[in-house]
Formats: sequence, C-alpha cells, structure tokens
Amino acid sequence: MEKGNVYFSDNGYQELTDYLKNNQNFSKIFVLVDSNTSEHCLPPFLQKVGILKDYELIEIEPGEDNKNIHTVVGIWDTLTELGADRKSLLINLGGGVLTDMGGFVASTFKRGMKFINVPTSLLSMVDASTGGKTGIDLGNLKNQIGVFSLPEMVIVSSEFLSTLEARQMRSGLAEMIKHGLIADKYHWDRLNDLDNLDLSSLDSLIKQSVTVKIKVVTEDPTEQGLRKILNFGHTIGHAVETFYMDTDKMLFHGEAIAIGMIAEAYLSTLKTGFEMEDADKVKKVILEYFPKTEIPKEDFKAILDLTKHDKKNVSGVISFSLLEDIGSCAYDCYALPDEIEDALAYYME
Amino acid sequence: MEKGNVYFSDNGYQELTDYLKNNQNFSKIFVLVDSNTSEHCLPPFLQKVGILKDYELIEIEPGEDNKNIHTVVGIWDTLTELGADRKSLLINLGGGVLTDMGGFVASTFKRGMKFINVPTSLLSMVDASTGGKTGIDLGNLKNQIGVFSLPEMVIVSSEFLSTLEARQMRSGLAEMIKHGLIADKYHWDRLNDLDNLDLSSLDSLIKQSVTVKIKVVTEDPTEQGLRKILNFGHTIGHAVETFYMDTDKMLFHGEAIAIGMIAEAYLSTLKTGFEMEDADKVKKVILEYFPKTEIPKEDFKAILDLTKHDKKNVSGVISFSLLEDIGSCAYDCYALPDEIEDALAYYME
Repeated sequence: MEKGNVYFSDNGYQELTDYLKNNQNFSKIFVLVDSNTSEHCLPPFLQKVGILKDYELIEIEPGEDNKNIHTVVGIWDTLTELGADRKSLLINLGGGVLTDMGGFVASTFKRGMKFINVPTSLLSMVDASTGGKTGIDLGNLKNQIGVFSLPEMVIVSSEFLSTLEARQMRSGLAEMIKHGLIADKYHWDRLNDLDNLDLSSLDSLIKQSVTVKIKVVTEDPTEQGLRKILNFGHTIGHAVETFYMDTDKMLFHGEAIAIGMIAEAYLSTLKTGFEMEDADKVKKVILEYFPKTEIPKEDFKAILDLTKHDKKNVSGVISFSLLEDIGSCAYDCYALPDEIEDALAYYME
Repeated sequence: MEKGNVYFSDNGYQELTDYLKNNQNFSKIFVLVDSNTSEHCLPPFLQKVGILKDYELIEIEPGEDNKNIHTVVGIWDTLTELGADRKSLLINLGGGVLTDMGGFVASTFKRGMKFINVPTSLLSMVDASTGGKTGIDLGNLKNQIGVFSLPEMVIVSSEFLSTLEARQMRSGLAEMIKHGLIADKYHWDRLNDLDNLDLSSLDSLIKQSVTVKIKVVTEDPTEQGLRKILNFGHTIGHAVETFYMDTDKMLFHGEAIAIGMIAEAYLSTLKTGFEMEDADKVKKVILEYFPKTEIPKEDFKAILDLTKHDKKNVSGVISFSLLEDIGSCAYDCYALPDEIEDALAYYME
C-alpha cells in the first residue's frame, strides 16, 4: 500500500480493515467527527469497519467558521489529555473542513502522527481529502496555514452522500467540472450531458475526478508547477468566497469556484487564446448547475483586493491557472486589475 | 549547497551572502528577532551580511514562556500583513526558542516558506538550530507541537556568545557533553579536561558537537531509530525542567538536561551494563559544571508523572536512551517507576 492511496466503496473498507489488522501496534486510535458526521456517518462507518472497536471519539463543531487555530488547539489539547502519542492514528471522518483540519492536527502533533481520511461530502471526496494539502484559515484567509502531508489512505464511499443537502452536493460538483475542464475533456462532456446524468453514474464520475486529481498531485506534490492547474477558478473563486463570508450571501466553496471558473474562462480568452465560444459554453453549462449570484459592480474592487492574498501569488503579481482548451490548462498566467474586473463583468453579463 | 547544511563563522557569512546573491527572486526577506537579539545580535549580523539591506524586521518577546501558539499566530498575522508569500524567506536570528518557533512558523505559513537559522546562543548552535526539528510548547508540554522541516542553511558564529550570561553558556554546554557521551569519547575527554579548557577551544568544540548531531540526524531525520540517542538525559531532564518551570527554582534547558544525564547514567547501569564507575565519573564531571539542584524526595512522584508525557513514549511505557559505554548509546530502553525514582535519588546522593 502506498501512502496517500485512495480506495473506493466496499473495497475501501476492506483495505482499511486490512490496514488496521496489519498495524495493531497503534498505541491508540482516534476518530475525529463533527456533530453532523457523528450522527449521520459514524454509525454506518463503524458498521462497515467492524474491526474498529477500541477508539476515542473527538467531536468538533462543523463549518468553515471553526476551521481555525482555536479549534486546532482544542484538538491538540484533547489528544494530549487522552494520551495520544506518535504511534497513534487519527481517522478523519467528515467533509473538507474536517479532513483539512484533522490532517493539519495530526501532522503537527508531536511532529507527526499518522492519519486516514474518510471524506463524507462530495467536495471532500473529489478534492480536499486527497493530495496531501492540510490546513486551516487565518482570520478570513482560507488555508493560510498548513503543511503538505499525505494521509495513510483515503476511503471514498458515496453512501455518505445520501445525507447531504443539494447545495452541498453541488459544491462538490464544481470541482468535478474543474477536473474535466483542466485535464479530461471526456469527463467534462459526461458532466455537461445533463439529460443523461443520474445518481447511478455518480460513483464512476467521482472515481474519474479522483483519478485526475491524483495524476496531477503525484507529478507535483508540493505545487512547484503542474499542480497549479488545480487552482483554475480558484483565484477569483476564493476571493468571492471570502468576500461573501459571514454575509447573507454566503457561498459554499463550490458555488464560489463556479463563479471563479466562469470569470477565469473569460480571462483565458485574453491570455491563452482560449476560444470565446468555449468560454460561453463553460458559462452556460455552469450556470445550469449554479444559479447566478448577484455581484454588484461596486463590490468588484474589494474582490480584486482579496485576490492579492492568494497563496499562489508571488512578488505581488496576481497569478492564475487558465484554460488553453477544454481539457488543457496553463499555469503562472498573470492578469491586470482591469482584466480581472472585466472577468467579473463577464460573469454578470 | 544541500538543505540543512551548517556553515561556520566568516565562511558561514560568505555562504549566506552567496546564497542571497544567487536567490534574488525572493519576493521578500523577513528577519525574526527577539528584543535581546534585536539589540545585541542584529547589528553585527547586518554588518557581516552587507548584502542584506531590504528586509522586514519582526520582533517577538524572548523566553520559553512565549514559545506558544499565541506568539506563532502573532507572527503569522504579521507575515500576512507584510505581504509574505511562498517565495519569501525568513531568517531566524536568536536562541533555541526563536529558531524552533521561527522554523515552525515558516514551515506552516502558506504550507511552507524557506527559512535560515542563525543561532545566537550556545544551546541553539550545538542543538536546536540544526536537524530540522521545529516546534512550540503546548501548555507546559515542551515542543508538543511541531513539524520536521530543514532550514535552507544554518550559520554558526560564536561571536554572538560574548553577549550571553554564564548560565546560558552552561546551558549549551550540557548538550555538548551529551554529544560526547553518546557518540564521541574524544569529545567527552576534551570537555572534561577542565584545566585545559578555554575560550579559544570553543570554536572547535562547537564544530565537533555539530558534527556529531548532523551525523546522527542525517542517518535518521524523523527519529525512527538512531536519532533517539540525542534524547539521552532528556526524558528525566524534560520532566525536571517542566516541574520547576514558573517556580523560583526555574532551570535552563541545559541545567535540567545535566540533571537528567546524571540520573539516566545511573539508569544505564541497571539496563545496559554501563559501569557504575563510569556513571560516577559522569556525575562528578557534570556537577563540576552544574551545581547541584535540590530536588526534595516529595517531588519525585510528580516528576515521574511528567516523564509519561515525553514524546518518545509509546503505549504508555516510559522510554529512555541510555549509555552503553562512554561514547556509545542505546535507545528504546524502558525503566520502571521505582527505577526512575532511584535514579533521581542517585542524583541527590
């Protein structure tokens, strides 16, 4: 078994069971949940992994608002009180907030204990839980603090999705669309064939998205180059997400990335020769999934300012990953402030 | 240049100068100091590294009391405000508290920016600044939180030592004695030949200690095995240090390790066949440098309890690295509570 491997469904549970059987020298096993996954996901999880009987449960509050150092310190303290050591294991059972944060906690506790991710949201399955990025927010800056650190394994099982609200499902869908756009035209084609899309195809679509992601991060684990293509839609998307955080227009991550992808598809037409016709197609398909969010022109400036804090930026220049074609993406592209405002205007058109 | 390399004195400054010349694409350079090193060490440092003109200074409060997540958050926030990004560089100019903490800050900021350590205390020169352990305390547990992460380089220059108090110098000396005891009999012999020890030999003694440390950590960077020998004296030493923290008997790190080495030399006689005669010699030499600290018998229990939190422990068993001979050390040795109390009694005899 290679570190960071992703296993699916019942096969995944079997891998996890084997792993626990073969590693019985863990001094203690901890399961990190939030109050939602504790109620909805823990019981089926324990049923599938019957071997896991002796464990300590650590429960945190759900939501991005709690993805901060305060929650992390609480988990560090709890691990300390419960006698966790370097030979303990942490199983993160939850969405992206929980797997990002749990990975960071495990990677920094006593300079590193092992962890396993069991994502319970679509977003976390196709994105957050794989690839070794761990992190928390600092103030309103998303994932400002973190380390690169691979989980022992990731178990992806779509059964958890039945408890998700539609809005959360859609949030994950945005990243899947992204995977198609940046690296897999066939995946994109399947995702925009709305008439023939149903739940039965979900498993294979998830698998395909994970395959794209893993291929990219394996080539470039610490984002020196290629991995940056995963940031398509994210420079503007993150800024929009941050801007509306804590307002009544609060957006889910994928909803913000949907906006970002439309705006950055437009930027692509300026920078990489991406066809305007393709940009319009991207916009049309995404808007079918994601109803338009009203972004007043007077908010553009503030959103623009927020793009400057993006982790991808260096030396104060705002950096983008932009489409060259459907299924192909460039990175280290730069855009001017005016162009970024035009891209937001394109989204609003 | 290999990551983590240690360079000495003027040669070190030349290496740093060359490094900065060859890496002019750093978006920004930050220098982390505390109020002591800002006053005493920054001016000579800047004089030696004339090329470093454009930098931002970040100043923190000195001392172990401030080696916590609160200070770290403050530095993260300051870096954010000053526009640090992944292509920025952090130069840590200070003692072990500062280099440990600065390394942790850099390794977690935006999932990692580069850092360089310029240790200004003897302890930090021969121990903390090299080997890639970064960390902070959690509550009263030392280095409970951290990551393994190598600095770009370490510059060791003994000129800073002239501003240190005798007690701080001695604190570093304990780790040097340890290096001799665990891996280099000649180094130990030189260090206990007190009559012929003077400041002029200090440079070569520091170099020898760093050589021992680097040899060990290069073989085992993440402390899976051999590196544990560097923990000789530290299981009991850390517990004693923690126990007297915030009391009027507060001990410097090296002072506590001196106690730990004497106690663990005694444990060695029980566990590895280390000669009692050698243990007595270790005790005699160390007590010449480090006057005896009164540890009342009624404190033994509480100190014993604290050894249980040591990061080296797994599965609740208290783990030690113990001398087999002068210049040779075993690891993963276990001792019973009674034996640990006897070891403290041996120190007090």
